[in-house]
Amino acid sequence: MNRWLLPEDIADVLPAQARKVETLRRAILDLYQSYGYELVAPPILEFLDSLLTGTGSDLNLQTFKLVDQLSGRTLGLRADITPQVARIDAHLLNRAGVTRLCYAGSVAQALTPVGGSSREQLQLGAEIYGCANGEADFEAITLLLKTLDLAGLKKVYLDLSHAGILTGILEGQQLDKESIETLYGLLQSKDRPRLRQWATCLPAKLAADLLALTELNGPCTEVIANAKKVLPRHAAVDQALADLECVVSAASKSLSGVELSIDLADLRGYQYHSGVMFAAYVDGLPQPIARGGRYDQVGKAFGRSRPATGFSLDLLTLAGLSPLNCRKLAVLAPWIDDADLNQVIADLRNRGEVVIQVLPGEVLEAAEYECDRELVKQGNSWELKKK
Amino acid sequence: MNRWLLPEDIADVLPAQARKVETLRRAILDLYQSYGYELVAPPILEFLDSLLTGTGSDLNLQTFKLVDQLSGRTLGLRADITPQVARIDAHLLNRAGVTRLCYAGSVAQALTPVGGSSREQLQLGAEIYGCANGEADFEAITLLLKTLDLAGLKKVYLDLSHAGILTGILEGQQLDKESIETLYGLLQSKDRPRLRQWATCLPAKLAADLLALTELNGPCTEVIANAKKVLPRHAAVDQALADLECVVSAASKSLSGVELSIDLADLRGYQYHSGVMFAAYVDGLPQPIARGGRYDQVGKAFGRSRPATGFSLDLLTLAGLSPLNCRKLAVLAPWIDDADLNQVIADLRNRGEVVIQVLPGEVLEAAEYECDRELVKQGNSWELKKK
Repeated sequence: MNRWLLPEDIADVLPAQARKVETLRRAILDLYQSYGYELVAPPILEFLDSLLTGTGSDLNLQTFKLVDQLSGRTLGLRADITPQVARIDAHLLNRAGVTRLCYAGSVAQALTPVGGSSREQLQLGAEIYGCANGEADFEAITLLLKTLDLAGLKKVYLDLSHAGILTGILEGQQLDKESIETLYGLLQSKDRPRLRQWATCLPAKLAADLLALTELNGPCTEVIANAKKVLPRHAAVDQALADLECVVSAASKSLSGVELSIDLADLRGYQYHSGVMFAAYVDGLPQPIARGGRYDQVGKAFGRSRPATGFSLDLLTLAGLSPLNCRKLAVLAPWIDDADLNQVIADLRNRGEVVIQVLPGEVLEAAEYECDRELVKQGNSWELKKK
Repeated sequence: MNRWLLPEDIADVLPAQARKVETLRRAILDLYQSYGYELVAPPILEFLDSLLTGTGSDLNLQTFKLVDQLSGRTLGLRADITPQVARIDAHLLNRAGVTRLCYAGSVAQALTPVGGSSREQLQLGAEIYGCANGEADFEAITLLLKTLDLAGLKKVYLDLSHAGILTGILEGQQLDKESIETLYGLLQSKDRPRLRQWATCLPAKLAADLLALTELNGPCTEVIANAKKVLPRHAAVDQALADLECVVSAASKSLSGVELSIDLADLRGYQYHSGVMFAAYVDGLPQPIARGGRYDQVGKAFGRSRPATGFSLDLLTLAGLSPLNCRKLAVLAPWIDDADLNQVIADLRNRGEVVIQVLPGEVLEAAEYECDRELVKQGNSWELKKK
């Protein structure tokens, strides 16, 4: 057996790439800080029932389980940080006002996610609690787009949706949990033939509304106008369309260089979302690079219902797509006991330079650094020379 | 049941504290970068037998196990990143020359570590591969002390030891693995009565040498002189004492403000260490804040024997002890649709300021920021005013 073989879809992040991830991580967290987001770091392990509070069965299937020797209870290795941050807002901070939180940490998934990306990710996100207004949704969307811009991804497609549409259409219907999950899968895949077949046992009007959803995607104003025509008049549906119009209007004023569209059947995470939802796409990645939206119900499971909106993404995927070059220039220096040399090296390092002291027998092969200069003794002083 | 209750000795890192951890993480990784260390990020999950390669039974007991659904094999949630980094050096990078690597990532321990600290830690460390010389040990020690200095810990005690002493004393003796682990525990705790009792079945000379070890601690020159007198003449012992003399001599020239001592019975991690070992202590923490040393054997288990030295510490513990204040000043701004205001806010953020736009209904309670100024409209322009 190859002892160095890693489990399927789990990988090391090697030099140069790890630095790129670190560089992006810092730039993005600094961006969130400049908007007043406070950083939190929930643990990677929690009791399973706490980790899955207020979430769907998807997350249960994706969560690695293990036994806590100290309590005998089942722990989960987190597959998503969002519910943990909701727990922190609801219970630990327990503030009356608006709370902006952000985080970056490792998550692991028991099964390889759709799209073939890694089972281990570095999830990074930002959340706003305590504000039910569209301004909060708009701030979240703005921050997400600025995040992608920091990574050098210039062409971004933003797909909007709204959980309230399906809530409105299904209101008064007696669908069990399993049926709703099947329905959500069929809508997600826009599999019209199978959806039509599955919906034969439903009232004809409902079946037609569900089928209509799969065609309500494309340019924003067009989709909203069509939706108003074909979807049933219902308070939740009307509110959803009004919310979407509000975001679209704010976005078209402020966000340049983004292609906005609406896809009313894109309801991934429908079980815990409750309002405007969004997904960002970039060239070269079939699945969304980032997802977010409103999930006002999550805090409720922790004993405190709070409006909430936010988004998250995998930093490893983002770094893989980012064209930024984070390789750094470096200076080589000999390893000898010389007080003058040590002082010159210390000064260079304090000025932000990388100085690599060559150890006995060292052959330099660093992937992260390009050594373009060296310290050479000229007469009585140490001078920086081009290599 | 309180759904928000966390497992024993596992905790959230909340705002202000999380920012302190992040600030230290960056400063420390920047320090390592300025020395030419390349960043790597191994995964949190690996096959158990790979994670435990070349390590002692301690690490096995400390490692959470879980089942990989994709392969049916047992995975370990890492309790230590050091063996992973050795695997990366030996197998993935596979370089002939010296390789300097550093890392920062989450680790979890199945049982609460001695000293009552958390079961989840943020392990941060630096390693040098491919150099058997004392210069590498000295670079590792220097970097460790600079790390503690960055955290504002001014009073540091550095305890040196050497794995070769016990190797020399035990050479030619037929002790099984279990006895060696018992012995190492007794030496570690300096439990002389129990050690004397346990050693009655050993040759009298060996028992006396082992007992002598428990008293060989204190100021460096004194301990080395005593060790030369009381320990047996043996190539490994002589080499160990020479190595220690070399480090002590380099350190006393260059490292000011550190209290150096030697403790030849401090052999934690003895099973995988092979040369100079060190532990750093600071006021307020009974256990070491950081540990390190030479472990030339680790790479061998991965098919490539490479000299190696380095150290690691828990960043969460370090941040808990650090007196640094990372709370940041911030500016409040209203949330209104005004192009001039938006421009002023963007400029402030670009200059590194935190600007919090107050959402409808917002009451500000941020723990991480102190809002000392606000943007106020005066005539036709937005001005920064003291609050």
